[in-house]
Amino acid sequence: MATISYSFKAVGVVHSPFRKPEDIPKEMNAAPGGFDDIESEIEVFPEFEPGLKDIDAFSHLIVLFSFHAAGPARLLVRPPFETEERGVFATRSPHRPNPIGLTVVRLLGRAGAGLRVSGLDAVEGTPVLDIKPYTRKDQKMDIKTGWIKGDDASCP
Amino acid sequence: MATISYSFKAVGVVHSPFRKPEDIPKEMNAAPGGFDDIESEIEVFPEFEPGLKDIDAFSHLIVLFSFHAAGPARLLVRPPFETEERGVFATRSPHRPNPIGLTVVRLLGRAGAGLRVSGLDAVEGTPVLDIKPYTRKDQKMDIKTGWIKGDDASCP
Repeated sequence: MATISYSFKAVGVVHSPFRKPEDIPKEMNAAPGGFDDIESEIEVFPEFEPGLKDIDAFSHLIVLFSFHAAGPARLLVRPPFETEERGVFATRSPHRPNPIGLTVVRLLGRAGAGLRVSGLDAVEGTPVLDIKPYTRKDQKMDIKTGWIKGDDASCP
Repeated sequence: MATISYSFKAVGVVHSPFRKPEDIPKEMNAAPGGFDDIESEIEVFPEFEPGLKDIDAFSHLIVLFSFHAAGPARLLVRPPFETEERGVFATRSPHRPNPIGLTVVRLLGRAGAGLRVSGLDAVEGTPVLDIKPYTRKDQKMDIKTGWIKGDDASCP
Protein backbone atom coordinates (compact mmCIF):
# COMPACT_ATOMS: atom_id res chain seq x y z
CA MET A 1 0.00 0.00 0.00
CA ALA A 2 1.44 3.36 -0.95
CA THR A 3 1.94 5.79 1.89
CA ILE A 4 0.35 9.16 1.29
CA SER A 5 2.65 12.01 2.15
CA TYR A 6 1.67 15.53 3.14
CA SER A 7 3.91 18.29 1.87
CA PHE A 8 4.37 21.55 3.70
CA LYS A 9 6.51 24.59 3.02
CA ALA A 10 8.08 27.13 5.35
CA VAL A 11 6.01 30.28 5.90
CA GLY A 12 8.86 31.91 7.78
CA VAL A 13 12.13 31.37 9.59
CA VAL A 14 13.37 31.70 13.19
CA HIS A 15 16.14 34.10 14.15
CA SER A 16 17.46 32.91 17.48
CA PRO A 17 20.41 33.57 19.79
CA PHE A 18 20.99 29.79 19.58
CA ARG A 19 23.07 29.03 16.50
CA LYS A 20 22.86 25.24 16.75
CA PRO A 21 21.11 22.62 18.91
CA GLU A 22 24.21 22.14 21.08
CA ASP A 23 24.00 25.82 22.09
CA ILE A 24 20.82 25.16 24.05
CA PRO A 25 21.67 24.25 27.65
CA LYS A 26 19.86 21.03 28.56
CA GLU A 27 19.00 22.60 31.93
CA MET A 28 16.73 25.06 30.12
CA ASN A 29 14.51 22.17 29.15
CA ALA A 30 14.26 21.12 32.78
CA ALA A 31 11.96 23.96 33.88
CA PRO A 32 8.63 25.00 32.32
CA GLY A 33 9.83 28.61 32.11
CA GLY A 34 13.38 27.79 31.10
CA PHE A 35 13.15 29.73 27.85
CA ASP A 36 11.05 32.64 29.12
CA ASP A 37 13.96 35.08 28.92
CA ILE A 38 15.06 34.02 25.45
CA GLU A 39 13.98 36.47 22.77
CA SER A 40 13.77 35.42 19.14
CA GLU A 41 12.32 36.81 15.96
CA ILE A 42 10.02 35.00 13.60
CA GLU A 43 10.52 36.42 10.13
CA VAL A 44 7.40 35.64 8.13
CA PHE A 45 8.04 35.57 4.40
CA PRO A 46 6.60 38.59 2.55
CA GLU A 47 3.99 36.64 0.60
CA PHE A 48 2.37 35.51 3.87
CA GLU A 49 2.47 38.87 5.69
CA PRO A 50 -1.26 39.64 5.08
CA GLY A 51 -2.03 36.54 7.16
CA LEU A 52 -0.59 38.32 10.24
CA LYS A 53 -3.44 40.84 10.37
CA ASP A 54 -4.98 40.99 13.89
CA ILE A 55 -2.23 38.87 15.44
CA ASP A 56 -0.88 41.74 17.54
CA ALA A 57 -3.83 41.53 19.93
CA PHE A 58 -2.93 38.02 21.13
CA SER A 59 -0.52 37.59 24.03
CA HIS A 60 0.57 34.05 23.15
CA LEU A 61 1.07 32.14 19.92
CA ILE A 62 1.53 28.49 19.07
CA VAL A 63 4.47 28.07 16.73
CA LEU A 64 4.85 24.92 14.64
CA PHE A 65 8.26 24.37 13.14
CA SER A 66 10.34 21.74 11.43
CA PHE A 67 13.02 20.03 13.50
CA HIS A 68 15.22 20.40 10.43
CA ALA A 69 18.40 19.48 12.29
CA ALA A 70 16.99 16.41 14.05
CA GLY A 71 18.50 13.01 13.42
CA PRO A 72 16.54 9.90 12.47
CA ALA A 73 13.20 9.11 14.12
CA ARG A 74 13.12 6.77 17.08
CA LEU A 75 10.04 5.26 18.71
CA LEU A 76 11.76 5.07 22.10
CA VAL A 77 13.83 8.00 23.34
CA ARG A 78 15.69 8.77 26.55
CA PRO A 79 14.87 12.34 27.61
CA PRO A 80 17.69 14.51 29.05
CA PHE A 81 18.51 13.66 32.70
CA GLU A 82 16.31 10.54 32.51
CA THR A 83 17.52 6.97 32.81
CA GLU A 84 14.50 5.28 31.26
CA GLU A 85 13.44 5.17 27.66
CA ARG A 86 9.99 6.62 26.93
CA GLY A 87 7.65 6.28 23.99
CA VAL A 88 8.37 9.18 21.64
CA PHE A 89 4.68 10.26 21.63
CA ALA A 90 4.97 10.68 25.43
CA THR A 91 7.88 13.12 24.97
CA ARG A 92 8.64 16.33 23.07
CA SER A 93 11.80 14.83 21.56
CA PRO A 94 12.73 16.03 18.05
CA HIS A 95 13.38 12.44 16.95
CA ARG A 96 9.75 11.87 15.96
CA PRO A 97 8.22 10.03 12.99
CA ASN A 98 7.18 13.50 11.74
CA PRO A 99 9.77 15.98 13.05
CA ILE A 100 7.34 18.82 13.81
CA GLY A 101 8.12 20.98 16.84
CA LEU A 102 5.54 22.95 18.83
CA THR A 103 6.15 25.75 21.31
CA VAL A 104 3.80 28.24 22.93
CA VAL A 105 5.53 31.62 22.91
CA ARG A 106 4.76 35.06 24.22
CA LEU A 107 4.28 37.71 21.53
CA LEU A 108 6.32 40.78 22.47
CA GLY A 109 5.70 42.84 19.38
CA ARG A 110 5.28 42.96 15.65
CA ALA A 111 7.07 45.05 13.05
CA GLY A 112 5.78 44.33 9.58
CA ALA A 113 6.39 40.65 8.89
CA GLY A 114 8.62 40.25 11.94
CA LEU A 115 7.26 38.87 15.21
CA ARG A 116 9.34 39.39 18.33
CA VAL A 117 8.66 36.53 20.73
CA SER A 118 10.00 35.05 23.94
CA GLY A 119 10.15 31.42 25.03
CA LEU A 120 11.02 29.85 21.70
CA ASP A 121 13.34 26.83 21.96
CA ALA A 122 14.30 26.72 18.30
CA VAL A 123 17.67 27.48 16.72
CA GLU A 124 18.63 30.06 14.10
CA GLY A 125 17.27 29.15 10.68
CA THR A 126 14.48 26.87 11.90
CA PRO A 127 11.73 26.74 9.25
CA VAL A 128 8.35 27.87 10.62
CA LEU A 129 5.39 25.85 9.33
CA ASP A 130 2.49 27.57 11.04
CA ILE A 131 1.52 30.19 13.60
CA LYS A 132 -1.74 29.94 15.52
CA PRO A 133 -3.28 32.07 18.26
CA TYR A 134 -3.23 30.52 21.74
CA THR A 135 -6.81 30.57 23.00
CA ARG A 136 -8.84 29.44 26.00
CA LYS A 137 -9.32 26.10 24.27
CA ASP A 138 -5.62 25.49 24.75
CA GLN A 139 -5.68 26.22 28.48
CA LYS A 140 -6.12 22.96 30.38
CA MET A 141 -6.08 22.84 34.15
CA ASP A 142 -5.64 19.88 36.50
CA ILE A 143 -3.33 18.09 34.15
CA LYS A 144 -1.38 14.89 34.79
CA THR A 145 2.04 14.83 33.21
CA GLY A 146 3.06 11.20 33.48
CA TRP A 147 6.73 10.40 33.86
CA ILE A 148 7.69 14.08 34.19
CA LYS A 149 8.88 14.54 37.74
CA GLY A 150 7.60 17.19 40.12
CA ASP A 151 5.62 20.33 39.55
CA ASP A 152 8.59 22.26 38.29
CA ALA A 153 9.73 19.59 35.90
CA SER A 154 8.80 19.74 32.25
CA CYS A 155 8.82 17.70 29.13
CA PRO A 156 11.87 17.62 26.88
CA MET B 1 14.46 30.16 -5.86
CA ALA B 2 13.24 26.66 -5.22
CA THR B 3 10.92 26.24 -2.27
CA ILE B 4 11.96 23.49 0.09
CA SER B 5 9.10 21.24 1.04
CA TYR B 6 8.75 19.15 4.15
CA SER B 7 7.07 15.80 3.73
CA PHE B 8 5.14 14.12 6.49
CA LYS B 9 3.17 10.89 6.65
CA ALA B 10 0.19 9.86 8.74
CA VAL B 11 1.05 8.00 11.95
CA GLY B 12 -2.60 7.23 12.57
CA VAL B 13 -6.17 8.09 11.73
CA VAL B 14 -9.14 9.62 13.57
CA HIS B 15 -12.38 7.74 14.09
CA SER B 16 -15.01 10.34 14.88
CA PRO B 17 -18.78 10.57 15.18
CA PHE B 18 -18.49 13.40 12.62
CA ARG B 19 -18.48 11.90 9.15
CA LYS B 20 -17.77 15.13 7.28
CA PRO B 21 -16.99 18.78 8.10
CA GLU B 22 -20.62 19.83 7.59
CA ASP B 23 -21.61 17.45 10.43
CA ILE B 24 -19.86 19.67 12.98
CA PRO B 25 -22.30 22.28 14.32
CA LYS B 26 -20.67 25.69 14.05
CA GLU B 27 -21.98 26.47 17.54
CA MET B 28 -19.61 23.87 18.95
CA ASN B 29 -16.72 26.06 17.87
CA ALA B 30 -18.21 28.99 19.75
CA ALA B 31 -17.38 27.73 23.24
CA PRO B 32 -14.00 26.60 24.57
CA GLY B 33 -15.53 23.36 25.87
CA GLY B 34 -17.81 22.81 22.88
CA PHE B 35 -16.26 19.48 21.99
CA ASP B 36 -15.69 18.21 25.53
CA ASP B 37 -18.44 15.61 25.26
CA ILE B 38 -17.37 14.34 21.86
CA GLU B 39 -15.51 11.04 22.08
CA SER B 40 -13.24 9.90 19.28
CA GLU B 41 -10.62 7.24 18.77
CA ILE B 42 -7.15 7.80 17.43
CA GLU B 43 -6.00 4.61 15.75
CA VAL B 44 -2.22 4.68 15.65
CA PHE B 45 -0.80 2.53 12.90
CA PRO B 46 0.82 -0.71 14.16
CA GLU B 47 4.38 0.25 13.18
CA PHE B 48 4.21 3.29 15.48
CA GLU B 49 2.58 1.57 18.48
CA PRO B 50 5.87 1.29 20.47
CA GLY B 51 5.98 5.10 20.47
CA LEU B 52 2.86 5.12 22.69
CA LYS B 53 4.72 3.67 25.70
CA ASP B 54 4.14 5.80 28.83
CA ILE B 55 1.42 7.89 27.19
CA ASP B 56 -1.32 6.51 29.45
CA ALA B 57 -0.09 8.57 32.41
CA PHE B 58 -0.82 11.90 30.74
CA SER B 59 -4.27 13.44 31.10
CA HIS B 60 -4.09 15.62 27.96
CA LEU B 61 -2.48 15.25 24.56
CA ILE B 62 -1.76 17.64 21.73
CA VAL B 63 -2.93 16.14 18.45
CA LEU B 64 -1.58 17.44 15.15
CA PHE B 65 -3.53 16.43 12.10
CA SER B 66 -3.91 17.22 8.44
CA PHE B 67 -6.92 19.29 7.39
CA HIS B 68 -7.21 16.87 4.50
CA ALA B 69 -10.67 18.09 3.52
CA ALA B 70 -9.86 21.81 3.64
CA GLY B 71 -10.18 23.91 0.56
CA PRO B 72 -7.51 26.26 -0.76
CA ALA B 73 -5.46 28.43 1.57
CA ARG B 74 -6.52 32.00 2.19
CA LEU B 75 -4.53 34.69 4.01
CA LEU B 76 -7.70 36.44 5.17
CA VAL B 77 -10.60 34.41 6.55
CA ARG B 78 -13.95 35.21 8.07
CA PRO B 79 -14.47 33.07 11.20
CA PRO B 80 -17.95 31.64 11.87
CA PHE B 81 -20.39 34.21 13.29
CA GLU B 82 -17.90 37.03 12.57
CA THR B 83 -18.42 39.84 10.11
CA GLU B 84 -14.79 40.90 9.75
CA GLU B 85 -12.00 39.16 7.94
CA ARG B 86 -9.02 38.21 10.08
CA GLY B 87 -5.46 37.24 9.23
CA VAL B 88 -5.35 33.45 8.96
CA PHE B 89 -2.48 33.25 11.50
CA ALA B 90 -4.77 34.99 14.01
CA THR B 91 -7.39 32.23 13.57
CA ARG B 92 -7.62 28.45 13.75
CA SER B 93 -9.19 28.24 10.30
CA PRO B 94 -8.36 25.12 8.24
CA HIS B 95 -7.67 27.30 5.18
CA ARG B 96 -4.01 27.85 6.13
CA PRO B 97 -0.88 27.93 3.96
CA ASN B 98 0.03 24.63 5.65
CA PRO B 99 -3.24 22.90 6.53
CA ILE B 100 -2.13 21.46 9.88
CA GLY B 101 -4.74 21.28 12.64
CA LEU B 102 -3.99 21.27 16.35
CA THR B 103 -6.29 20.28 19.20
CA VAL B 104 -5.63 19.61 22.87
CA VAL B 105 -7.67 16.56 23.85
CA ARG B 106 -8.32 14.63 27.04
CA LEU B 107 -6.99 11.08 27.05
CA LEU B 108 -9.72 8.77 28.30
CA GLY B 109 -7.95 5.49 27.81
CA ARG B 110 -5.69 3.37 25.69
CA ALA B 111 -6.20 -0.10 24.28
CA GLY B 112 -3.17 -1.23 22.31
CA ALA B 113 -2.67 1.24 19.50
CA GLY B 114 -6.06 2.87 20.06
CA LEU B 115 -6.38 6.07 22.09
CA ARG B 116 -9.84 7.01 23.30
CA VAL B 117 -10.01 10.80 23.59
CA SER B 118 -12.54 13.56 24.11
CA GLY B 119 -12.57 17.07 22.70
CA LEU B 120 -11.29 16.31 19.21
CA ASP B 121 -12.82 18.50 16.49
CA ALA B 122 -11.71 16.34 13.57
CA VAL B 123 -13.81 14.24 11.22
CA GLU B 124 -13.71 10.52 10.49
CA GLY B 125 -10.63 9.57 8.50
CA THR B 126 -8.54 12.60 9.44
CA PRO B 127 -4.84 11.72 9.11
CA VAL B 128 -2.93 12.18 12.39
CA LEU B 129 0.58 13.60 11.98
CA ASP B 130 1.81 13.71 15.56
CA ILE B 131 0.80 13.18 19.17
CA LYS B 132 2.55 15.07 21.98
CA PRO B 133 2.02 15.16 25.73
CA TYR B 134 0.45 18.37 27.07
CA THR B 135 2.77 19.66 29.79
CA ARG B 136 3.10 22.62 32.16
CA LYS B 137 5.00 24.43 29.40
CA ASP B 138 1.76 24.54 27.43
CA GLN B 139 -0.26 26.06 30.29
CA LYS B 140 -0.31 29.83 29.89
CA MET B 141 -2.27 32.03 32.23
CA ASP B 142 -3.36 35.67 31.85
CA ILE B 143 -3.73 35.39 28.11
CA LYS B 144 -5.11 37.97 25.72
CA THR B 145 -7.13 36.53 22.88
CA GLY B 146 -7.47 39.41 20.48
CA TRP B 147 -10.59 39.61 18.35
CA ILE B 148 -12.22 36.64 20.13
CA LYS B 149 -15.14 38.03 22.04
CA GLY B 150 -15.76 37.47 25.74
CA ASP B 151 -14.38 35.00 28.18
CA ASP B 152 -16.56 32.22 26.92
CA ALA B 153 -15.79 32.81 23.28
CA SER B 154 -13.17 30.79 21.51
CA CYS B 155 -11.18 30.63 18.36
CA PRO B 156 -12.57 28.94 15.28
